[in-house]
Amino acid sequence: MKVVIVGGVAGGMSAATRLRRLMESAEIIVVERGDHVSFANCGLPYYVGGVIPKRESLLLQTPESLAARFRLDVRVRHEVLALDPEGRTVTVRELDSGREYVESFDELVLSTGAVVIAPPMPGVERALVLRDVADVDRLTAAVADVRSAVVVGAGFIGVEMAENLVRRGISTTVVERALQVLSPLDVEMAGPVAAEMRQHGVQVELDAEVTRIDAHTVTLSDQRVVPAELVIMAIGVRPESALARDAGLEIGSGSGIVVDGRLRTSAPHIYAVGDVVEKRDAVTGHATLVPLANAANRQGRLVADVIAGLPVTDPPARGTAIVGVFDLTAAMTGWSEKRLRAAGRPFRVLHSHPLAHAGYYPGAHAISVKLLVDPDTDLILGAQAVGGDGVDKRIDVLATAMAGGLPASRLIDLELAYAPQFGSAKDPVNMLGYMADNLRTGAIRTVQWHEIDEAIAMGSHLVDVRSPEEFAAGSIPGACNIPLDELRDRASEIVDGPILVFCQVGQRGNTATRLLTQLGRDAVNLDGGYRTLRDATADQAR
Amino acid sequence: MKVVIVGGVAGGMSAATRLRRLMESAEIIVVERGDHVSFANCGLPYYVGGVIPKRESLLLQTPESLAARFRLDVRVRHEVLALDPEGRTVTVRELDSGREYVESFDELVLSTGAVVIAPPMPGVERALVLRDVADVDRLTAAVADVRSAVVVGAGFIGVEMAENLVRRGISTTVVERALQVLSPLDVEMAGPVAAEMRQHGVQVELDAEVTRIDAHTVTLSDQRVVPAELVIMAIGVRPESALARDAGLEIGSGSGIVVDGRLRTSAPHIYAVGDVVEKRDAVTGHATLVPLANAANRQGRLVADVIAGLPVTDPPARGTAIVGVFDLTAAMTGWSEKRLRAAGRPFRVLHSHPLAHAGYYPGAHAISVKLLVDPDTDLILGAQAVGGDGVDKRIDVLATAMAGGLPASRLIDLELAYAPQFGSAKDPVNMLGYMADNLRTGAIRTVQWHEIDEAIAMGSHLVDVRSPEEFAAGSIPGACNIPLDELRDRASEIVDGPILVFCQVGQRGNTATRLLTQLGRDAVNLDGGYRTLRDATADQAR
Repeated sequence: MKVVIVGGVAGGMSAATRLRRLMESAEIIVVERGDHVSFANCGLPYYVGGVIPKRESLLLQTPESLAARFRLDVRVRHEVLALDPEGRTVTVRELDSGREYVESFDELVLSTGAVVIAPPMPGVERALVLRDVADVDRLTAAVADVRSAVVVGAGFIGVEMAENLVRRGISTTVVERALQVLSPLDVEMAGPVAAEMRQHGVQVELDAEVTRIDAHTVTLSDQRVVPAELVIMAIGVRPESALARDAGLEIGSGSGIVVDGRLRTSAPHIYAVGDVVEKRDAVTGHATLVPLANAANRQGRLVADVIAGLPVTDPPARGTAIVGVFDLTAAMTGWSEKRLRAAGRPFRVLHSHPLAHAGYYPGAHAISVKLLVDPDTDLILGAQAVGGDGVDKRIDVLATAMAGGLPASRLIDLELAYAPQFGSAKDPVNMLGYMADNLRTGAIRTVQWHEIDEAIAMGSHLVDVRSPEEFAAGSIPGACNIPLDELRDRASEIVDGPILVFCQVGQRGNTATRLLTQLGRDAVNLDGGYRTLRDATADQAR
Repeated sequence: MKVVIVGGVAGGMSAATRLRRLMESAEIIVVERGDHVSFANCGLPYYVGGVIPKRESLLLQTPESLAARFRLDVRVRHEVLALDPEGRTVTVRELDSGREYVESFDELVLSTGAVVIAPPMPGVERALVLRDVADVDRLTAAVADVRSAVVVGAGFIGVEMAENLVRRGISTTVVERALQVLSPLDVEMAGPVAAEMRQHGVQVELDAEVTRIDAHTVTLSDQRVVPAELVIMAIGVRPESALARDAGLEIGSGSGIVVDGRLRTSAPHIYAVGDVVEKRDAVTGHATLVPLANAANRQGRLVADVIAGLPVTDPPARGTAIVGVFDLTAAMTGWSEKRLRAAGRPFRVLHSHPLAHAGYYPGAHAISVKLLVDPDTDLILGAQAVGGDGVDKRIDVLATAMAGGLPASRLIDLELAYAPQFGSAKDPVNMLGYMADNLRTGAIRTVQWHEIDEAIAMGSHLVDVRSPEEFAAGSIPGACNIPLDELRDRASEIVDGPILVFCQVGQRGNTATRLLTQLGRDAVNLDGGYRTLRDATADQAR
């Protein structure tokens, strides 16, 4: 059997090495347009920033090492120009010589990845991107000479680039069209990320666009001119599906190659994996783009199993993702509230701000966690977390709970590893379970930060149950202050009518709401407390 | 309703506060023998070591704060002397005055915890223990004056105490009867823990017992005399069930109170939670003791729900636990190999030594992971991990996968948060899934470190596929060295017969085994590689 793989990074190289372990006799050819295969694409921003000091660290394999270990025929600087599905051939150009030749295949794997989107604007040709080793070489050369940079787009790569440019001492502006950074997150979870960036000197321009790029500046949509000796385009990627499209393969509405559960394209003997394909969403079952390295690697291995005749299927995607932002970490899995809202799906939402480990052990910092729950099934639809240590762990646990089909209120029962430096006797994930269970059973009713105005309009009295000191440092206009420990005795001070209780993070509010409810009052708790409200509105308040 | 709770720490206090949130009108009395309620028992060793600098950090609540917030009647230094299940009363002694009185109850919760086991031996009265704040005060006073200490028992508490005594500059010996430290772990996982302790100056005496305690020394079973100005007894705990036993409540074979799935004892209106009860094992369904804070907290909250009439049941226990040991972390969930072996249950085992995060990002250290799998169902029976950062995360993910009923080979599909500082595109947990799937499908056969001698006796040739440099630095006697990248060409050098392949951690061995198998050879891979063998046998080699 002769297998040709187009693209030699995450998906393609996983496919090639797995295929060799399954089929010693197969002829395996990997055709890669760039100079390098199997490089550490997720490490590129950190090489620019100097965190990864050595360029060779990025180069995980060479054609020679892959030939020696896996007997792979790896051809770098070879580009596939055309694909003939009927004839089962590809036309390849050797970039250095310009020589073109036809290579036949029994099976073909397309792992052509994604390309950075660069909107047409004057000067866009001056913008650099960051996808491969050649890009990182250009960028590394550029950062040595500049004092100012503009990053267009505040997605994962844009945020990572901004951090690493600041590490290089470069005055950096991030320009983002949306009203928040990291648009896969909901706005109240993205608030602390923007604040962290600003605290470390990044100029974050939200609700703004770059309209032209000049020699040393860019112009924003509000006509402001920002210094930009360097411009990095990072507004997102789209599937590099032209080869497949030109060959007549089915392409989806998101421009990705359409594949079935066994990664087969619409043409026989042609498979596709990674960023170039449309994946199946775990919530809706619909096609979705998930340009993530872990998904590409898994699909690469899986397609080898399929070609080898093993009985496997590609599971639906949840799109778990994480990003470091200076001293913060932001991560998410599954659906966001805005996506659920846009799709018209019902959901329950809850926010929590637990300490990452026991408060009495040094170094305990709060993390902010958000959980989205299906009100009919109690299944977890999505989760987001922002904070320091422990964010990755909680998102991974929640992603695993989702994969295992655990209902939100069963998070109570998870036995998670506890010693005071690692967690709490009631872990933040267990606490989410308790909160979800209270919502499910109706023991607690909550309102969200964006529902406060409506609650006030409906006649709710706002009661801040924090301490007088906390109240004095800032509260919601119109709130009265009755500290939780005095509430039992002073509840009668609150005039008749619905009560909207709040505290700093929601926990004292929960106790207060239970107390008032049992005293016969119509009380609801502000989910996530004053902190979630502040996180959500800090950017508006600027 | 009048509820009396005996014991005011993890389980008892969780019960009391939850009960108040559910039942504002109930009368809730908490009777606690010690000076303090709701203290940070898991933090005590770290206060001794000075990691937690302030004593008040350990005291999470006071009777006054609990009265103010939750209207609890908390009586510290009150001991319950007797329980009359029929009359529904307890006899209480106020320890300071000696006054005794009878308190009636509608519902009673026993959360009396566990007591340190102190075997009879000469001088045992000089040994200190560490269970409560009074203990920690005694111990903290003692450590200020001593230069030598012996810790009896190398369980979780013993190991934590040894670390914190070393922090205090005290020359410390740990004496453990077993052939390994941390007996909940399997021996090859405990090896690195003992090595870490020794590297930090702890004298670790395995296969040894203390037979007598004198004024400044202890005597070991082999007659050696070890300096011990301070002796700490930490060989384990047993349920503090005397009160229940004397009252005629059913006690299990492990001396714990027998409860049903709603935490009801054999007597009506009497419940029990936490370390004092026997829990139901998640693997066998049999009674088991799980003296862990997270279980106690969960049961405490749950019993309040039961008393309030909510439809809840106590889930079976897996006993997830973790301990920090200087710069290492050791954690486990579910069953160990030795427990499975003793119970005669079939299992598959696999070892892995992945990097905690991408190797090209600075600070990537290996962690050692072990997975135990049911060969019939492919369900995960248990997991263990030892290493630095990332151990807690992987054990929590695996504990969650177990709770969700995910088969081991479906760990492949978990979408875990990946950026290079947090994990790998194929996370260590995904890799466990790949390995489990290879075993399940028969793509790979492995042997364990303790099966090498038998394989050699059966005529296996040992082939070390590491580099010549690694081979020269130490290998298995009798092995020949054929580096993996030369194996394809040199396979014919290996004489006919079964081949036992090994490398450093098992990964190159896996590729080699697949290659040899496809070349028609009878090859197996040493699971976990030379490293697991070394971890398992380092203590024997001493």
